[in-house]
Amino acid sequence: MSEVRIRPRQVLILIIVFLVVLMMVHRNGKRTCQGPEFLQAMFVQGDTLPTTYAVTPTYPRPAQKAELTRLSHLFMLLPHLHWIIVEDTNATTPLVRNLLDRAGLEKRSTLLNIKTPSEFKLKGKDPNWIKPRGVEQRNLALAWLRNHVDVDRHSIVFFMDDDNSYSTELFAEMSKIERGRVGVWPVGLVGGLMVERPLLTEDGTKVTGFNAAWRPERPFPIDMAAFAISMDLFIRNPQATFSYEVQRGYQESEILRHLTTRDQLQPLANRCTDVLVWHTRTEKTKLAAEEALLKKGQRSDGGMEV
Amino acid sequence: MSEVRIRPRQVLILIIVFLVVLMMVHRNGKRTCQGPEFLQAMFVQGDTLPTTYAVTPTYPRPAQKAELTRLSHLFMLLPHLHWIIVEDTNATTPLVRNLLDRAGLEKRSTLLNIKTPSEFKLKGKDPNWIKPRGVEQRNLALAWLRNHVDVDRHSIVFFMDDDNSYSTELFAEMSKIERGRVGVWPVGLVGGLMVERPLLTEDGTKVTGFNAAWRPERPFPIDMAAFAISMDLFIRNPQATFSYEVQRGYQESEILRHLTTRDQLQPLANRCTDVLVWHTRTEKTKLAAEEALLKKGQRSDGGMEV
Repeated sequence: MSEVRIRPRQVLILIIVFLVVLMMVHRNGKRTCQGPEFLQAMFVQGDTLPTTYAVTPTYPRPAQKAELTRLSHLFMLLPHLHWIIVEDTNATTPLVRNLLDRAGLEKRSTLLNIKTPSEFKLKGKDPNWIKPRGVEQRNLALAWLRNHVDVDRHSIVFFMDDDNSYSTELFAEMSKIERGRVGVWPVGLVGGLMVERPLLTEDGTKVTGFNAAWRPERPFPIDMAAFAISMDLFIRNPQATFSYEVQRGYQESEILRHLTTRDQLQPLANRCTDVLVWHTRTEKTKLAAEEALLKKGQRSDGGMEV
Repeated sequence: MSEVRIRPRQVLILIIVFLVVLMMVHRNGKRTCQGPEFLQAMFVQGDTLPTTYAVTPTYPRPAQKAELTRLSHLFMLLPHLHWIIVEDTNATTPLVRNLLDRAGLEKRSTLLNIKTPSEFKLKGKDPNWIKPRGVEQRNLALAWLRNHVDVDRHSIVFFMDDDNSYSTELFAEMSKIERGRVGVWPVGLVGGLMVERPLLTEDGTKVTGFNAAWRPERPFPIDMAAFAISMDLFIRNPQATFSYEVQRGYQESEILRHLTTRDQLQPLANRCTDVLVWHTRTEKTKLAAEEALLKKGQRSDGGMEV
């Protein structure tokens, strides 16, 4: 067999060419990430970040797909998130399944369903026992998590409504939650205030109280979007669930009282001074023209998924 | 100088090892992109896609940062977008500037401002001459584009409200708009209907009409979110601007009548059967507790940006 003679200098040149091409390809790969630096850093850390399970109860209504579409962008941007969507329906719907597929989230999502029993649906005169949406759905998600999550790996649970607004930075903060702890932060536009927030000791390490104006006497007077929980707490406290048997505004306190104390809360978001989530509400869709069409046996969306 | 003898088979093995390492690195690079396949393909095409200039008029209100934060995720996901935000203020605000910086969009955004003249602000009794928000702001953006965009490179202009909901797929469709044309597609939850959409010829190539229920007599009875425009049309038609001198609901027709005819519209979004954008509206923020605080000379958000 013939042989080629090669000099050490040529070997060196070959190696350099190899490394340059490698760097170019690597750089090109990185360019696919267009977010800010902290987001790029999160991609690089990737597998080392604790998985964050975002639990989203949802129910059919005209704006449902619009809302879930907006949320799906966060999951496309943050590879350490896993989306648990729980539909308030008798079966999972093609609308939500299609949405997860088209967002490329098949492997990073879990679709569940459970219908809220009709006896717990909102009735006319029950001001103090208004049955909050999402109890049944969040509990199903917790049961799924307790059965499916590897307890030895640190992970985070967050309850994510389908119409609030979340920044990517919120999820960077959440990933700092330590084992055995509940992280807290401010929430904008909630409880009649511009911002509801935890009040801290001067060194910023402990929560001493909250600035809530609405029912400040609650054990944890904070919104569902104001905290996330280390998964091991749910394993160690199987009694921690949401309940229909609590007053309006007490769901957060109900789940947290099993898991933590004010003293043990972990303040995040730059010592609770950054607002990274907002309790926005979407207007009910006005469909007068559609109703007029339906009376004539017609509709604008025949054969289309809106 | 010493020499190493090398066989052709060894060269082949070296090349194979090189290619395998290259593929592994390349794959690893791709993994930073978590979106669906069409989105990954758009990243790869990157520089070959026409730049899409999204023009967003915005004004100060409690939910402004929440809304712009939601929109910023689309810009993080889609590298061929350029965001032109035009504030309805006397100067650009730190809130919007910070938001663009923290989203890593410094180089892919332009921040402008122009205050709507007070004589054009909404008054009590002017039912047919209601002055729509955004006229002044959109026209400033058009002037900026006419002065700054390289006409020889194909690009797209889209008017993007700050509270609607957009899918990433919409922007993939938009990039198919041909030079000299205006692309159109359905919009969900607008005009009292589940979906307003263009009606097409059987072969799906031409627009024959629209299904609008509200003022169907308009030349183009469609929402601002229903179309995007090839930039060269604005250069060739400098008279195309928005106007205060038109009736409510006629802004879209006003701009389009200078640029295209129904017959020339380019139907997109799977022959106008996919709904990829929704005219959602966010509820006005309820701030009763904040107002009570302000009366006492206090506030919940002292020193914080909400």
